[in-house]
Amino acid sequence: MSSNYIGKNFRFTTWGESHGPAIGCVLDGVPSSIKLSEKDIQPYLDKRRPGQSKFTTQRKEKDKVEILSGVFEGVTTGHPISLIIKNEDHRSKDYSEIKNVFRPGHADYTYWKKYGIRDYRGGGRSSARETAMRVAAGAIARKVIEKKIKKKFNIYGALVQIGKSKINYNNWNEKFIDKNNFFSPDKQIIKTWEGLIQSARKSGSSLGAIIEIRCNGIPAGLGEPIYDKLDSDIAKAIMSINAVKGVEIGNGFNCVNETGISNVDEMRIKSGKPYFLSNNNGGILGGISSGQEIICRFVVKPTSSILSSKKTIDIKMKEKIISTKGRHDPCVGIRAVPVGEAMIATTIADHCLRYF
Amino acid sequence: MSSNYIGKNFRFTTWGESHGPAIGCVLDGVPSSIKLSEKDIQPYLDKRRPGQSKFTTQRKEKDKVEILSGVFEGVTTGHPISLIIKNEDHRSKDYSEIKNVFRPGHADYTYWKKYGIRDYRGGGRSSARETAMRVAAGAIARKVIEKKIKKKFNIYGALVQIGKSKINYNNWNEKFIDKNNFFSPDKQIIKTWEGLIQSARKSGSSLGAIIEIRCNGIPAGLGEPIYDKLDSDIAKAIMSINAVKGVEIGNGFNCVNETGISNVDEMRIKSGKPYFLSNNNGGILGGISSGQEIICRFVVKPTSSILSSKKTIDIKMKEKIISTKGRHDPCVGIRAVPVGEAMIATTIADHCLRYF
Amino acid sequence: MSSNYIGKNFRFTTWGESHGPAIGCVLDGVPSSIKLSEKDIQPYLDKRRPGQSKFTTQRKEKDKVEILSGVFEGVTTGHPISLIIKNEDHRSKDYSEIKNVFRPGHADYTYWKKYGIRDYRGGGRSSARETAMRVAAGAIARKVIEKKIKKKFNIYGALVQIGKSKINYNNWNEKFIDKNNFFSPDKQIIKTWEGLIQSARKSGSSLGAIIEIRCNGIPAGLGEPIYDKLDSDIAKAIMSINAVKGVEIGNGFNCVNETGISNVDEMRIKSGKPYFLSNNNGGILGGISSGQEIICRFVVKPTSSILSSKKTIDIKMKEKIISTKGRHDPCVGIRAVPVGEAMIATTIADHCLRYF
Amino acid sequence: MSSNYIGKNFRFTTWGESHGPAIGCVLDGVPSSIKLSEKDIQPYLDKRRPGQSKFTTQRKEKDKVEILSGVFEGVTTGHPISLIIKNEDHRSKDYSEIKNVFRPGHADYTYWKKYGIRDYRGGGRSSARETAMRVAAGAIARKVIEKKIKKKFNIYGALVQIGKSKINYNNWNEKFIDKNNFFSPDKQIIKTWEGLIQSARKSGSSLGAIIEIRCNGIPAGLGEPIYDKLDSDIAKAIMSINAVKGVEIGNGFNCVNETGISNVDEMRIKSGKPYFLSNNNGGILGGISSGQEIICRFVVKPTSSILSSKKTIDIKMKEKIISTKGRHDPCVGIRAVPVGEAMIATTIADHCLRYF
Repeated sequence: MSSNYIGKNFRFTTWGESHGPAIGCVLDGVPSSIKLSEKDIQPYLDKRRPGQSKFTTQRKEKDKVEILSGVFEGVTTGHPISLIIKNEDHRSKDYSEIKNVFRPGHADYTYWKKYGIRDYRGGGRSSARETAMRVAAGAIARKVIEKKIKKKFNIYGALVQIGKSKINYNNWNEKFIDKNNFFSPDKQIIKTWEGLIQSARKSGSSLGAIIEIRCNGIPAGLGEPIYDKLDSDIAKAIMSINAVKGVEIGNGFNCVNETGISNVDEMRIKSGKPYFLSNNNGGILGGISSGQEIICRFVVKPTSSILSSKKTIDIKMKEKIISTKGRHDPCVGIRAVPVGEAMIATTIADHCLRYF
Repeated sequence: MSSNYIGKNFRFTTWGESHGPAIGCVLDGVPSSIKLSEKDIQPYLDKRRPGQSKFTTQRKEKDKVEILSGVFEGVTTGHPISLIIKNEDHRSKDYSEIKNVFRPGHADYTYWKKYGIRDYRGGGRSSARETAMRVAAGAIARKVIEKKIKKKFNIYGALVQIGKSKINYNNWNEKFIDKNNFFSPDKQIIKTWEGLIQSARKSGSSLGAIIEIRCNGIPAGLGEPIYDKLDSDIAKAIMSINAVKGVEIGNGFNCVNETGISNVDEMRIKSGKPYFLSNNNGGILGGISSGQEIICRFVVKPTSSILSSKKTIDIKMKEKIISTKGRHDPCVGIRAVPVGEAMIATTIADHCLRYF
Repeated sequence: MSSNYIGKNFRFTTWGESHGPAIGCVLDGVPSSIKLSEKDIQPYLDKRRPGQSKFTTQRKEKDKVEILSGVFEGVTTGHPISLIIKNEDHRSKDYSEIKNVFRPGHADYTYWKKYGIRDYRGGGRSSARETAMRVAAGAIARKVIEKKIKKKFNIYGALVQIGKSKINYNNWNEKFIDKNNFFSPDKQIIKTWEGLIQSARKSGSSLGAIIEIRCNGIPAGLGEPIYDKLDSDIAKAIMSINAVKGVEIGNGFNCVNETGISNVDEMRIKSGKPYFLSNNNGGILGGISSGQEIICRFVVKPTSSILSSKKTIDIKMKEKIISTKGRHDPCVGIRAVPVGEAMIATTIADHCLRYF
Repeated sequence: MSSNYIGKNFRFTTWGESHGPAIGCVLDGVPSSIKLSEKDIQPYLDKRRPGQSKFTTQRKEKDKVEILSGVFEGVTTGHPISLIIKNEDHRSKDYSEIKNVFRPGHADYTYWKKYGIRDYRGGGRSSARETAMRVAAGAIARKVIEKKIKKKFNIYGALVQIGKSKINYNNWNEKFIDKNNFFSPDKQIIKTWEGLIQSARKSGSSLGAIIEIRCNGIPAGLGEPIYDKLDSDIAKAIMSINAVKGVEIGNGFNCVNETGISNVDEMRIKSGKPYFLSNNNGGILGGISSGQEIICRFVVKPTSSILSSKKTIDIKMKEKIISTKGRHDPCVGIRAVPVGEAMIATTIADHCLRYF
């Protein structure tokens, strides 16, 4: 069953395994006449790339993207854009021990149940490495949105919680986000988070995180009732990211603590134009963007790749004890920030291509 | 842009407005040779139907479903099943006041921005009435799942929170759920909830709710990496329900409070068969069902149809004050229980038809 | 597997069996703000309706269409349009004899092999009655094309061959087509065709036919390389009509008798605008409309419902002799003219919604 | 708009331009546990490859395919299979003259109208080079069919007509097809065809061709009414091949010369099993395979790339005269044989994955 693509009008299909020769992606539906080169994509990949700080995995890859089709003389042609990143740093030996053993909390057992076979090297297809192509697609999605809405917009993410430590929203400073290793908008929490990560690393454990994505400048009218609502498609796109276990829009789960009176976003007119007195609905009403800031949050579970020993089984139905060797990322949620941004960007691009 | 369907293999398309002559749904992909009659569908519709208790809206409709095609001599033929429910209780006059005014928190403004026209009678297409057809589709989905997995299974929902009042999970009693007007699994909370609803009604306000859906007996292997993960599709299906603002699987957002050590679901063998020592992942690993109980929660915002006055604008960009007249549901989340069940059932049926 | 819909952006799903309570169709993707009522659809249905002349089947149905949703105050809302036609003239008794016997040349055997069950009354789902909904969808497609291309266009079909008797293209008179029972553009062939039909009826046999559809005023640019070419989608749409066994564009199969020199459509400029010196390619180049007249022909086989005895088998694998009783259409190709028009119109509407 | 893929369950997406760095394809939906290596694909590519005989274009490419994903230890994993062929023989200089001029009969004008930009080198995306990836997909489709139907089958094509010269069907010799440069099943026609091709080459013209594809061993039950009929999907797949202008099943257009009596395929029983007394319907009844041989024919127009001068225009709306320089293929229909086989194979594989 075909399932490695997402989107209807802005559609991309990813392929590749963590330890195969390459990973890649085909974007089908990008309009013609958009200026595009690898330079538009690479910065986003660099942001996601492992090995950048001591707070993420030490696997070092250049993640250098190449455009193989769909661009002619620096401009998109309207034909499929094929992207490829060659895999460089395999270290297959790291994974030989887990060949027949299911890493608990991972897709090993379910892949094996479903397919009867699995590429056990680095998680194979289920590796977070696949998300590099999402980030690349997201970079192109931004170009598509720009072309369609014809005005400034901004889609950006930030880490708002690691473990139990939440940022102070009053300290929100968008410009600070790209100036720290955590994509934190709150300068004052950095020290605390550094401590948490160090401590998780030492104890061979890991931490979960909550990411918030904000989109400014997105016009009203995006999203299709009834089943392709903008928030439905965002929910699907975000939940498809590895290790994500929840997604919410605007006030999200917290709206249960409000009443109909406090939660409604009232409207007024200023200089002949409508505006809202609040944004509890996170920029989406009835599945359609309202022109307000779109706000989405999602949670990334503490990675199951931990150094501590865990009980598990193998393909012969024998009980085993396993612990992850080698590279180890104490908080995968940090690297999920650019991935979340990308999935929101591709979803919005998809709806732009439906609407405009 | 076509968007009124959901599912790839078990696909249904709904149609109809709150105050049109009828609403309906076409199910395309139901296998042949399944016994089916209106009696299999009606009980689920009755469960969702308004006007049943004093805690939900007083709109009285019989919601009597008719099968118009795809069933021959009591058995499905493999051809599309067309369902129809005639609308009986229109009361169009109730809605004339809001013809040119946008009800805040509703889809009125965004529909108008998108389409330039809207059927203002009872919300038109955006009315929760559309969810009746989801419930009907869900009833048929259960028959499909039964045929495919060939063993007992159970998909059921419960209300676990109204406003700030959460059930005590230790009191969980599945059998009690259908014996109270709230679909509560906790007998001891009923009095509190009755008070909350009465009080919201009196103050012309409304309350949000959290619903939990559980699925037992679903085999391992359902769900398609990378983008049609079982949880991605569940997230999309659930988020497409009116007023839903968040969805989570297993521990969901709460997993951020755990560590990699505490959150991993370890595995052991019993009588030659694998089992899990916990279910933090809610029955889904890497987007594929693990054979454990599938657990999904979602939040329904306090309805925006409230009796209290709210600031808004009209289509001429004039400021207005509005309050909902007529029927009024202080907690739409209650009726979302059977809808949530249905969306999970249709999603699982869809994946059964891909897998088996 | 879901397969009762066609189109990506202008999508319609049909449902219903020949002898069920009704047939219907849901159109998903029709833009808002198009004036639409049953009066826009009915004339096309009347054109297809059986029982109109002695040259087609005598089954009498009013085929009265009702719009159940998606239209508000005479205008489309952008939401799904549900159409229904109630079945009136069942005569189920006519079909009891073929309950367990496969009519040769029909879908009886293959449906039974595929589904293990079949609604044997009047062909059930495989009845040409399903095409009534295509014609209804085609009527709405024309309104969509009109809205999108914003100028006059014309999609019309004609019968160009019955049995071995082909029209003289020099006699082509578009205005004559709707003034005869055959949809013939050639007045001089009518007598011959009347004789052929009478003779086929008398001998209990039937005749094939070739239909030509022409589309004027369709702009350049419709159609998507590589796999959703305009001609690919036309081929699929046309081949999906019951009894069609071949489809061709422009010169079609006859281009094998040309050379590269004679078959190329050369281009010149007149008043600053490009035009073509010929139209061998039938208005489509590289899968995209060129702005020329789009020309498509298809063949409808002699119906297999004949009065003469034929060898066949039954579901118990016993040999049988069968002949069709009751109503009998000696040339189903005649009624295929409006159906062919409709399928071309819906395909063009689909591509208009992708392009504009 | 996304359109570079085909198939629902066996889906492949192609990418790449004639003179870009590479062409490629991603297959999504191939089941796990099928033995697969480049050796299974290369022979089909070699069959299609130009430069093999003096009767096709002299462009020399190795067309060496590489598998980049989806295969682990020689076996498919159920994940997307990415194929790539590097372009080697560009000769971009050959095409500089046509940079601003539309080659008549080609997609140049329509691409320019649609996209406003085109990669003019060798036809860019509209080049027949894209069909190499279809042939590669077809090779994998055969492996999928084999796995699903679990018995011997044969899908093969032959050239049955060049220009006005048709084979004698009585001379049909399947084994001879791969032993001549024309894929002719009729040994006695070779001399005639050689003469035709030489003469077309000398006169700077080209010839059309008719190809017939036959499929043996395909079980009954493949194909989905109403719109995804096996023949509808075949028609779409075949019509999507460059330069194809018509497609027919079984007797095809010739059925208009038959009557209901002569055209019906009667059925009998032999050793308890049903068989047909004829195969006028080409193995498909009501859109579903009957278990008989599936027969499909299609016509390829005489290529528009001819050495003779033709009238055309340029992007500045100036009249021009053009003739193709460089490599020139007097009958592209010959190379369409393996492409036609591949498109039928992928369509059947798609329906196998829906049915089994």
